[in-house]
Amino acid sequence: MQRTSFAQMHCSIAQTLEIVGEWWTPLILRDVHLGLHRFDDIAEDLGISRNLLTRRLAYLVEHDILERRPYQTRPVRHEYHLTEAGRDLAPALLVLMAWGDRHATPPGGPPLRVVHRACGHRFTPEVTCSSCGEPVTGRDIEAQPGPGAAAAPGTRVLARLTPGPPAVYKPSS
Amino acid sequence: MQRTSFAQMHCSIAQTLEIVGEWWTPLILRDVHLGLHRFDDIAEDLGISRNLLTRRLAYLVEHDILERRPYQTRPVRHEYHLTEAGRDLAPALLVLMAWGDRHATPPGGPPLRVVHRACGHRFTPEVTCSSCGEPVTGRDIEAQPGPGAAAAPGTRVLARLTPGPPAVYKPSS
Repeated sequence: MQRTSFAQMHCSIAQTLEIVGEWWTPLILRDVHLGLHRFDDIAEDLGISRNLLTRRLAYLVEHDILERRPYQTRPVRHEYHLTEAGRDLAPALLVLMAWGDRHATPPGGPPLRVVHRACGHRFTPEVTCSSCGEPVTGRDIEAQPGPGAAAAPGTRVLARLTPGPPAVYKPSS
Repeated sequence: MQRTSFAQMHCSIAQTLEIVGEWWTPLILRDVHLGLHRFDDIAEDLGISRNLLTRRLAYLVEHDILERRPYQTRPVRHEYHLTEAGRDLAPALLVLMAWGDRHATPPGGPPLRVVHRACGHRFTPEVTCSSCGEPVTGRDIEAQPGPGAAAAPGTRVLARLTPGPPAVYKPSS
């Protein structure tokens, strides 16, 4: 199953997908976040082929999302644990979950609830503005080219952006 | 390119991926959010094959993420616009972008900056708790089974969760 690589795209969404966007990968990471660390446990939970899981895990280790830690010595066996970059994916997984809860909920309602330990309450993950703290939607953001912008394959759209503020490019419906 | 369907999984991440998780799809949606609405514009921007783009767009229309609107009549041609569910994906795309900016930035720095119109400031998208407003990380959430939980293929891990609070299942590194 050969896929087009996004590695050369000047787009941070594409860069993220290149590392964690393959089919099955977000679910593998969900399982590790939920406390499954061993190959057999993840394979059994997901019902994924062992061959495919081996490839996905190796790729995630290679790209510094997971790390292998030995848990027995004869023979040596490893568990998979999240790196810092892997742990930082938790908010992204929560937001994908929240979208699914709202727009694609399986019969019976949300399969999972999340509690925020810091405040002790069940919560809905919200994406907010780091400046004012309010939730952000597609309707109230403007995109501007950043320092790494380039009108290259995959991001020719950036050629339509005017560098620097004021932004002229408005996300629309 | 046949993929395993996640449609039967009692997991809202899986449900989300089933609709918008295929290779290329998040980038197609990025383009529509950025204002590209016509087939030829998206195809040229991404460098995606027309055949594949046709399939992806049809699937997104079928699943109510995009809608087709005629913009000329002879011959009839359509633009692709976001539905409410499609617009609601903007925060998820922003969070994927923020992760890429931090952990997989292309040379030159972030390709895109975002400005929050409501407050006028450049911002970093943050995932926060709807109850206390503080940012959430993988370290300070607890997962509990929701009303739609089922220990079925893809979610056998849920069998390890104890129903209702107090949660016993703690996301770990």
